Amino acid sequence: MDILIIGAAGMVGRKLVDRLVADGSLAGQAISKLTLVDVVEPSAPQGAGFAVATETADLGEPGTAARLAAARPDVVFHLAGVVSGEAEENFEKGYRVNVDGSRNLFEAIRLEGDDYRPRVVFTSSIAVFGAPFPEAIHDEFLSAPLTSYGAQKAIAELLLADYSRKGFLDGIGIRLPTICIRPGKPNLAASGFFSNILREPLSGKEAVLPVEESVRHWFASPRAAVGFLLHAAAIDLEKVGPRRNLSMPGLSATVGEELAALRRVAGDEIAGLVRHEPDPKIQAIVAGWPRNFDTSRARALGFQAESEFDEIIRAHVEDELDGKIGG
Amino acid sequence: MDILIIGAAGMVGRKLVDRLVADGSLAGQAISKLTLVDVVEPSAPQGAGFAVATETADLGEPGTAARLAAARPDVVFHLAGVVSGEAEENFEKGYRVNVDGSRNLFEAIRLEGDDYRPRVVFTSSIAVFGAPFPEAIHDEFLSAPLTSYGAQKAIAELLLADYSRKGFLDGIGIRLPTICIRPGKPNLAASGFFSNILREPLSGKEAVLPVEESVRHWFASPRAAVGFLLHAAAIDLEKVGPRRNLSMPGLSATVGEELAALRRVAGDEIAGLVRHEPDPKIQAIVAGWPRNFDTSRARALGFQAESEFDEIIRAHVEDELDGKIGG
Repeated sequence: MDILIIGAAGMVGRKLVDRLVADGSLAGQAISKLTLVDVVEPSAPQGAGFAVATETADLGEPGTAARLAAARPDVVFHLAGVVSGEAEENFEKGYRVNVDGSRNLFEAIRLEGDDYRPRVVFTSSIAVFGAPFPEAIHDEFLSAPLTSYGAQKAIAELLLADYSRKGFLDGIGIRLPTICIRPGKPNLAASGFFSNILREPLSGKEAVLPVEESVRHWFASPRAAVGFLLHAAAIDLEKVGPRRNLSMPGLSATVGEELAALRRVAGDEIAGLVRHEPDPKIQAIVAGWPRNFDTSRARALGFQAESEFDEIIRAHVEDELDGKIGG
Repeated sequence: MDILIIGAAGMVGRKLVDRLVADGSLAGQAISKLTLVDVVEPSAPQGAGFAVATETADLGEPGTAARLAAARPDVVFHLAGVVSGEAEENFEKGYRVNVDGSRNLFEAIRLEGDDYRPRVVFTSSIAVFGAPFPEAIHDEFLSAPLTSYGAQKAIAELLLADYSRKGFLDGIGIRLPTICIRPGKPNLAASGFFSNILREPLSGKEAVLPVEESVRHWFASPRAAVGFLLHAAAIDLEKVGPRRNLSMPGLSATVGEELAALRRVAGDEIAGLVRHEPDPKIQAIVAGWPRNFDTSRARALGFQAESEFDEIIRAHVEDELDGKIGG
């Protein structure tokens, strides 16, 4: 099993690599080779029982996709992309990377010829949906994004489905919930507080909550995200049919529920490190975001996520803090 | 009012030109100039009370879009495209014309700069929808096309909406029903019979019906299609909001209802010219097509279509046959 990961240096990419190294196999087959590609040099994992190559490359540059496809990997994880804020600020870069980069990849695979038809797992986003929403966004709800990032992901989804339908590749697009708890430092993303208010206190630091506790959103842990990717690489896509893009399961929870779980798992002192500081700008942005999904199709196909926030917090404590709460 | 029509040599384009020439105005403003562009030389209309320029050009070619945008037309009708069958057969051409051509146009308008923000009316298609369908395809139903043509139109819709949201242009995408009665000769399109079984008998000729009379589909006359275009060019798009792509009103009717209307309007002898010759291949294609829509948004915005097939037939007799049935 020869695997290519594009966007391997990102948070989800690194976690996927760690998991593949630990498992040594994917979809029941031993991994023979792993190629890691990103616009910044991906770090090679320690202790892999198979060959690992790393490469700095940009899918938006001519020739990159053709070179990667020429190695004919069995599974391609396409995680590369410009994030939401940057795509909104830099219109041309967003389209070049998120649309042209994806199309270049799919085209290069198509041009490899009829006998090459790899599984392509593409990470899309719930940003393909724009308000107003139904009570829960179901599998037949339209993609009417309200950001360029969402439009770009929705376009890549249409390409993936059409290339799959034509038999040029065997693709599946998975729309990730907001990943929580995001490891690392607090960032400036408008969604950052959903993770900050848990991650920082769990390390003994203060955190700021800029919205009301009643704000509801859609979450999955980094561990669940890696699980989606592995499952997407392994399942029989004949069962999925021509609609190749799926909203992944997640947990619909309010900020208040996040904080209650923090209190249960880590105690009153840790939970007390969260300071309320309402920020009308962030409140306005968050008001347009999805709150809840009905992911019947993905669940029927065996995709799984956490069902309560305590689990999400415990996964973080185990995976990032070696079990130690409070720093 | 300076108007550009791209795809002006097609059936809908020619009817739009005739109407603009007859009206002399659009959205209450006198027309000063009309530029007609197509990949085949568009014919200049007779008797226009304003300047008309014609040009053979392809939006997929470098430089074409920039040149057209540099003239800064107030309204752009973007009707150009490779049709469904050709897009399915020639994958590269379909994407080049239907996706790259549209994107080139939108990009050229964006690059003209902030003070240029024309109304862009784009003809999309109900092919953006793929089975299985609800009883009536409503305004929040997902675009999951089952043809490359449908995927290409859906991608152009996403671009149009994103460019509009960013303020680069003021776009509206209108998804046309199957146009019936299509004037001209019978063609090989799988949908051709919907028009053939009316147009040919109305001219005294035999026609073949390849499906059961119970087959239901979604129709509007060429006259209604031109009405959609004019209305789309004139309405206040602030009211439309960020969802800039709309399924147009139409008439949901069975083939049996078509034939009953033919009998009412033209009599038994004319209706007797239709011969049943079931064709399993066409039956299979048609089975995957939309049958009915709930077009609440478009109707609320004032778009109108026929409400019975007799009207559609009478429009054809008036517009194409000078009122004379039977050849």
